[in-house]
Amino acid sequence: MANFALKYQSTLGLITLTGIEVDTLVIALVKTSFTTIPHSLPVMDFVITIDPQASLPLHRQVYEELRRAILSGRLAPGQRLPSTRSLSQSLGISRATVIQSYDQLFSEGYLETIVGSGTFVAHQLPDDLLRVAPITSTPSATSSSIPLSAYGQSLTDRAFSRLPELEAQINFSYGRPAYDQFPINLWRKLLSRHCLANLDVLDYTNSSMGYRPLREAIADYLARSRAVQCSAEQIVIVGGSQQGLDLITRLLIDQGDWIAVENPGYLGARRVFLAQGACLFPVSVDQFGLVVSSLTRGIIPNIKLIYVTPSHQFPTGALLSLPRRLELLAWAQNSGAMIIEDDYDSEYRYGERPIPALQGLDQGNSVIYVGTFSKVFFPALRLGYLVLPDNLVDVFTRAKWLADRQSSLLEQYALTDFITEGHLERHIRRMRSLYDQRRQTLVESLFAYFGEKVQIIGENAGMHLMIKIHTNLSDGEIIQRAVEVGVGFAAAHSNYLKDSPSSEFILGYADLNEQQIQAGVRRLSQAISEN
Amino acid sequence: MANFALKYQSTLGLITLTGIEVDTLVIALVKTSFTTIPHSLPVMDFVITIDPQASLPLHRQVYEELRRAILSGRLAPGQRLPSTRSLSQSLGISRATVIQSYDQLFSEGYLETIVGSGTFVAHQLPDDLLRVAPITSTPSATSSSIPLSAYGQSLTDRAFSRLPELEAQINFSYGRPAYDQFPINLWRKLLSRHCLANLDVLDYTNSSMGYRPLREAIADYLARSRAVQCSAEQIVIVGGSQQGLDLITRLLIDQGDWIAVENPGYLGARRVFLAQGACLFPVSVDQFGLVVSSLTRGIIPNIKLIYVTPSHQFPTGALLSLPRRLELLAWAQNSGAMIIEDDYDSEYRYGERPIPALQGLDQGNSVIYVGTFSKVFFPALRLGYLVLPDNLVDVFTRAKWLADRQSSLLEQYALTDFITEGHLERHIRRMRSLYDQRRQTLVESLFAYFGEKVQIIGENAGMHLMIKIHTNLSDGEIIQRAVEVGVGFAAAHSNYLKDSPSSEFILGYADLNEQQIQAGVRRLSQAISEN
Repeated sequence: MANFALKYQSTLGLITLTGIEVDTLVIALVKTSFTTIPHSLPVMDFVITIDPQASLPLHRQVYEELRRAILSGRLAPGQRLPSTRSLSQSLGISRATVIQSYDQLFSEGYLETIVGSGTFVAHQLPDDLLRVAPITSTPSATSSSIPLSAYGQSLTDRAFSRLPELEAQINFSYGRPAYDQFPINLWRKLLSRHCLANLDVLDYTNSSMGYRPLREAIADYLARSRAVQCSAEQIVIVGGSQQGLDLITRLLIDQGDWIAVENPGYLGARRVFLAQGACLFPVSVDQFGLVVSSLTRGIIPNIKLIYVTPSHQFPTGALLSLPRRLELLAWAQNSGAMIIEDDYDSEYRYGERPIPALQGLDQGNSVIYVGTFSKVFFPALRLGYLVLPDNLVDVFTRAKWLADRQSSLLEQYALTDFITEGHLERHIRRMRSLYDQRRQTLVESLFAYFGEKVQIIGENAGMHLMIKIHTNLSDGEIIQRAVEVGVGFAAAHSNYLKDSPSSEFILGYADLNEQQIQAGVRRLSQAISEN
Repeated sequence: MANFALKYQSTLGLITLTGIEVDTLVIALVKTSFTTIPHSLPVMDFVITIDPQASLPLHRQVYEELRRAILSGRLAPGQRLPSTRSLSQSLGISRATVIQSYDQLFSEGYLETIVGSGTFVAHQLPDDLLRVAPITSTPSATSSSIPLSAYGQSLTDRAFSRLPELEAQINFSYGRPAYDQFPINLWRKLLSRHCLANLDVLDYTNSSMGYRPLREAIADYLARSRAVQCSAEQIVIVGGSQQGLDLITRLLIDQGDWIAVENPGYLGARRVFLAQGACLFPVSVDQFGLVVSSLTRGIIPNIKLIYVTPSHQFPTGALLSLPRRLELLAWAQNSGAMIIEDDYDSEYRYGERPIPALQGLDQGNSVIYVGTFSKVFFPALRLGYLVLPDNLVDVFTRAKWLADRQSSLLEQYALTDFITEGHLERHIRRMRSLYDQRRQTLVESLFAYFGEKVQIIGENAGMHLMIKIHTNLSDGEIIQRAVEVGVGFAAAHSNYLKDSPSSEFILGYADLNEQQIQAGVRRLSQAISEN
């Protein structure tokens, strides 16, 4: 096949290739167009292949190629075909052959003609043709036998199958802010402001760390509001906290390394750790957050990372107390472990004491601080950040380059303005007050309808609370009964790595108004009390 | 420390915590505000910590905390401090103590007062204070001793250090489209259209595969223009082709597995492979693309993946011939290897034969097709896609979830409209014609100014071409001389894994107009011909 030579011609926009040595394949790039859509769409490129040496007659091959294209949808109803003259020239075959193919397709209902306009794929294809499976000329595909990597194999575990998304009229799903309260018009204005044909916003950034003014704005904001001590040089912008956790795990964890996690704890993080082959060491949680003393009692493996959610422990809502914070930092210094501080929901505290971030209390380089804007803005905004010890900045920047080079630059520009012009803190203040009302409504409703039968856990922060219902029903029965009356929420048990209790549920309230919250709790109490 | 109790009060928006058991730390969330900026900015949260048990007097501690905050920039010039009464209540200390601290700061020039307004951080801080390094009360940080993972260690190799970005008046850098030609106003309009406070565009998608209508639009487009045979169910939206390559490597490659790569080939891909611990098997390239026969001659390792750029071999620009494509597919079927088809630059062919994508010619499940919109749109748009064999869709979707959950949804919506409304193909047609002109100008200029001294390689497609200059100068000397006359471009040698020749260069032309191209080549020829 080494002497493969090429001859090409270009006629009426049709381009043909004849492979001399192989001498069996003729390929044409065919231009077709839609005419049924009001503002006529552009001509579209479309490739067909025939084989002059094959036993199947040429007109049959053209017929098969076009029919397959129609059935597979590559040629859509209403799309114009090239003229028989163009196609014959393009394929280097006689026009009579093409006419024969077209006639066959026409007679079978695949094509229709409009006088003075040309030949089109029929708008209404024969029903029986659409009912059969699409034909293919290739033999049925053999399954790829390539084995997955260890990482890939770990993902096929059923622990990674996602729970079906709840569909309910009143959905207490968690992690969802009040979408209708986000100043979307302002966001649009900020995006538009930077939507300019200039190199800066369209090009690759010169650093995968992210847009520098954004990193500066974040450093300022964190210093003010969370007592985080960092410069812009320690911040790497990532695609949400999820990418942050993934990069941390890839860069610091090998198969078999130990990671301590809160029990219960955030499943999204645990999955990342497990996928990377980490062994997980569960540490229990009480009303003051992680029970740090568990890390120094009994037989403890050599822990390399510990993952904590100190501002609003997920899902219990506990705030990690100051003594526990200091104790955790001291433990990390002594043991050489790194702390991943996932400070999600730190924005929302209701009438409660602020406690500085672990990162700001740290006297060494033991903390990687993970933050995200997905919860304060909206989840589809995939922007978060890592605050790193100086000695890790370089390797994280390289890993970010390899992972996806950079996060959406336009959104980084808009976010910078949103922060520096004061909209972020204004929005947080508004939401804090709104969520506080909604939280109070939820707490009051729960007591009103459930009374003694409900115990509320961790209600003083964040966008959700956890409840324990005293009942004989199983978790599945409760969820099912709730769904039947149009109420959705999640059981807490999948967040436990061990000692999973029943009857614990997570109720998000940020995106529900007071009427919805009251109605949801009422319906729920009725559904559960019925036998 | 288990009996840590909490007492909190809320006065004038100031919230205080007193740790009873520890009994040494008092932390206040202080609200400060800017008044110097026209549209007065919101009040900002700010945390300070004092220790009633410490030997340092309280007024001195408050002074130190505030001074540190000012010097580190946490409190900015012009920012208003809380009143002495508020702060004393918040910290639970006497007002006299706070006044003493403020007075000290005032006398040293850190604060200023405005009658009737309050106390502010001084606009002009004493020069000598700013010259000294910021003080910190914590001892100097000890360096983290946590070892990197094998993946992390591989990134510290100097092979991963990035080449400095060229700064030149006329920059023939490659991979950059004509930024000023992108219909940015249309893009802004499409973004705005979907910038709505509704769940669909702000929420998590229900599948990490990406927005379904976008996947359908891509499947249609690929079927028409590249003869790719796929349904929307085989497409996973990723953050540019870079993320696509990273996911493929993570899911299919373990340390020590072999990947065949083109030599020369794309460095960005090679870095991903090396970081994952793959061994690379270089396969040479000639004017018909990858020399497939090299895969069956001599001693060949057990190759698991082969990475090819068939539409426009990077950097040589060769189009992988049809016989070679068929040969490669047959080899993959026999050997069980997967082909990564990176079809970058497939949009731009100039008067040349189209050849269907490997994916469409494949009779098995041997091909993963990688596409990106970064080159057709603009690099900062981090949207690309993978076309996967059915049996790999699930694991890739899970890996995408773990990596960053989903790509920017707003941009996915806008992109969908851009494709389905025909703008994509219209834009590609316009750019194809424009780049063709620019390419011709570059070729003519090179011949005009260099004559016999230049050899042009792979000029019939894409956004760059490769040249070989017959000269006695080293690559470094040529680059240096070019920079001195304001011309930037890159040597090809870093793209070679072995047998790297000298005097080969890559010239991007898509983002340069004809005058710039002519001037750039003229300056370059003069700079090189001088002795």
